[in-house]
Amino acid sequence: MYTTFESTPRYDGFRMPGEFEPHTKTWMLWPERSDNWRMGAKPAQSTFVEVANAIAQFEPVSMGVSRAQFQHARQMLPPQVRVVELSYDDAWIRDCGPTFVINDQGEVRGIDWVFNAWGGLVNGLYFPWDQDDLVPQKVLNIEELGRYRAPIVLEGGSIHVDGEGTLFTTAECLLDEGRNPALSQAEIETVLAEYLAIDKIVWLPRGVFNDETNGHVDNIMTVARPGEVIVTWTDDPQDPQYEISREAYEVLVHAQDARGRKLKVHKIHQPDPVLISEEESQGVDAVDGTLPRLAGDRMAASYINFLIVNNGVVVPTFRDRHDQAALSALQEIFPERKVVGVYAKEILLGGGNIHCITQQQPLGKVG
Amino acid sequence: MYTTFESTPRYDGFRMPGEFEPHTKTWMLWPERSDNWRMGAKPAQSTFVEVANAIAQFEPVSMGVSRAQFQHARQMLPPQVRVVELSYDDAWIRDCGPTFVINDQGEVRGIDWVFNAWGGLVNGLYFPWDQDDLVPQKVLNIEELGRYRAPIVLEGGSIHVDGEGTLFTTAECLLDEGRNPALSQAEIETVLAEYLAIDKIVWLPRGVFNDETNGHVDNIMTVARPGEVIVTWTDDPQDPQYEISREAYEVLVHAQDARGRKLKVHKIHQPDPVLISEEESQGVDAVDGTLPRLAGDRMAASYINFLIVNNGVVVPTFRDRHDQAALSALQEIFPERKVVGVYAKEILLGGGNIHCITQQQPLGKVG
Repeated sequence: MYTTFESTPRYDGFRMPGEFEPHTKTWMLWPERSDNWRMGAKPAQSTFVEVANAIAQFEPVSMGVSRAQFQHARQMLPPQVRVVELSYDDAWIRDCGPTFVINDQGEVRGIDWVFNAWGGLVNGLYFPWDQDDLVPQKVLNIEELGRYRAPIVLEGGSIHVDGEGTLFTTAECLLDEGRNPALSQAEIETVLAEYLAIDKIVWLPRGVFNDETNGHVDNIMTVARPGEVIVTWTDDPQDPQYEISREAYEVLVHAQDARGRKLKVHKIHQPDPVLISEEESQGVDAVDGTLPRLAGDRMAASYINFLIVNNGVVVPTFRDRHDQAALSALQEIFPERKVVGVYAKEILLGGGNIHCITQQQPLGKVG
Repeated sequence: MYTTFESTPRYDGFRMPGEFEPHTKTWMLWPERSDNWRMGAKPAQSTFVEVANAIAQFEPVSMGVSRAQFQHARQMLPPQVRVVELSYDDAWIRDCGPTFVINDQGEVRGIDWVFNAWGGLVNGLYFPWDQDDLVPQKVLNIEELGRYRAPIVLEGGSIHVDGEGTLFTTAECLLDEGRNPALSQAEIETVLAEYLAIDKIVWLPRGVFNDETNGHVDNIMTVARPGEVIVTWTDDPQDPQYEISREAYEVLVHAQDARGRKLKVHKIHQPDPVLISEEESQGVDAVDGTLPRLAGDRMAASYINFLIVNNGVVVPTFRDRHDQAALSALQEIFPERKVVGVYAKEILLGGGNIHCITQQQPLGKVG
């Protein structure tokens, strides 16, 4: 039953599970806005279909689609993908969607963070974002799951957890003046602790170079399993990512998680710099208040922006000389899962990647 | 899984169950359009909430709501009602929604009839109706049920079945030139037989006087259980309904159903004539192409337009001197169910009643 609880997840015995724990399904939203996705979003839609198909090999997919695109999306997607009408401002359900929590009895509920398009009127990426902010309510209604309305601005892509009390995030994002300027770092930590059942927060200083989300953690590092993380890397000291990755690595190798463990830290070398071409830039509508896509701009390309699913890992590739090494390294890190690559430049051109456009719903025993 | 089957329900072993068989839930749509519902649909919305609450005593309710009204509907409805975003042109899910069928293994699928707003460009009630026609696809996607796209124009309110091979309908509606002018009565019968697993069709000549649906059967008669039907009635020979009800009664008492049974026919006396007041008429936006609501027009008021739910019957009342007799008669006809009245003039003012705004989804064992 859909109810908004006035308590907190931790108080009620709920925790955020790791992405590597079993899923019921994965949620996605259909890309549409022509001021962010080039050529009326058609190339991105094809890539989203490929991502949905890749995930659907492993677990069910539900795709939220606007009224305008419902018929087209239904036709492009295979029968095993559920297509539900759902309004949104853009397709980043990792960030605007609910963060699911679970208790020991297997009941699943959702956290509905305040969403302000990555910085609101300070440095947000578009305006308005009212439909994005309703996505969690709509998903939780469809699934008939309980809801917590959290008292802070937060996007799902700015946090990773190990499911055992440890949270990873970046100071660049969570302490940015566009999110919660009235809250201290300690106050934000308290909310994360109460809503996700967190005992230890590992703060990386920054996210990937030129990441328009103010450095979401899910593009620079992720959690393979408790005690084991993966960070994006470059060997090129001239690359602005060089210092950022080293800094993150240093924090991670010296960190202790909530259970007192030292972390095993894997490195995955990033692709060569991916720039927006003239043609790609020209296909995007110019709209005041929406971040432009300018030719020559460097995108925040990273293999880390993958999704772990039941028995699988769905990884962005870039037709880059590092693709094969990344896929092989991930297959070694996840011997129990099948690693699948999807060529994902079109998602990157919209400002994120596979992890940003997906949100896993954990497997519950009820609800 | 949502798939569109190319075969027919009967061929695949499916039949339309009687409304009195067990339900999983009832679907409704939120009233909104101000050119049909007076005062910006606010009085109707209150009544729809009462209907949803009445049904929710007995079984789950899912309410489809447009993007524009989502937050308001979510706030007006209790937590046990699931609210899902869904576009439509108006709120008559009995007519635009799917007709559910079931097989012996308890699998449920949905029939998606062609919908043309009760007569299309010939005598339809508004234009366009494209979103109404997508409602079945959207409901079946949410529920992950298979779909049949039927090859005829039909509204769910124009048919009643006993679940054992008998269908009741009116010639006034099904043979109207606004529906399927290219098809003969025999061809329409063949489609009904194949899609609903019907062996015998009982044709009533006409529906209730002044019914803007071209005389939907669900306003003049219904099926209480196999072999037992109820018809709206009047003792006033001056009332234009007098002849219509007698005519229907004569057909019913002389009919044999698909199992060869004679029918037990109950009569429920209609309310006194319900006319649109000056004030009620003035609250409706005037829009070309939408049926106007004129002061003095007689509405097609009938107690028969009720919904049978699990262990209950939800019946429209009119603050009329016949209300109590109707409720008592229904309680006698349904001793195993609790009969609940809801004052429903606001639904009637929109052109229908409780049965027209609801669609039951039968209880399945899978999907």
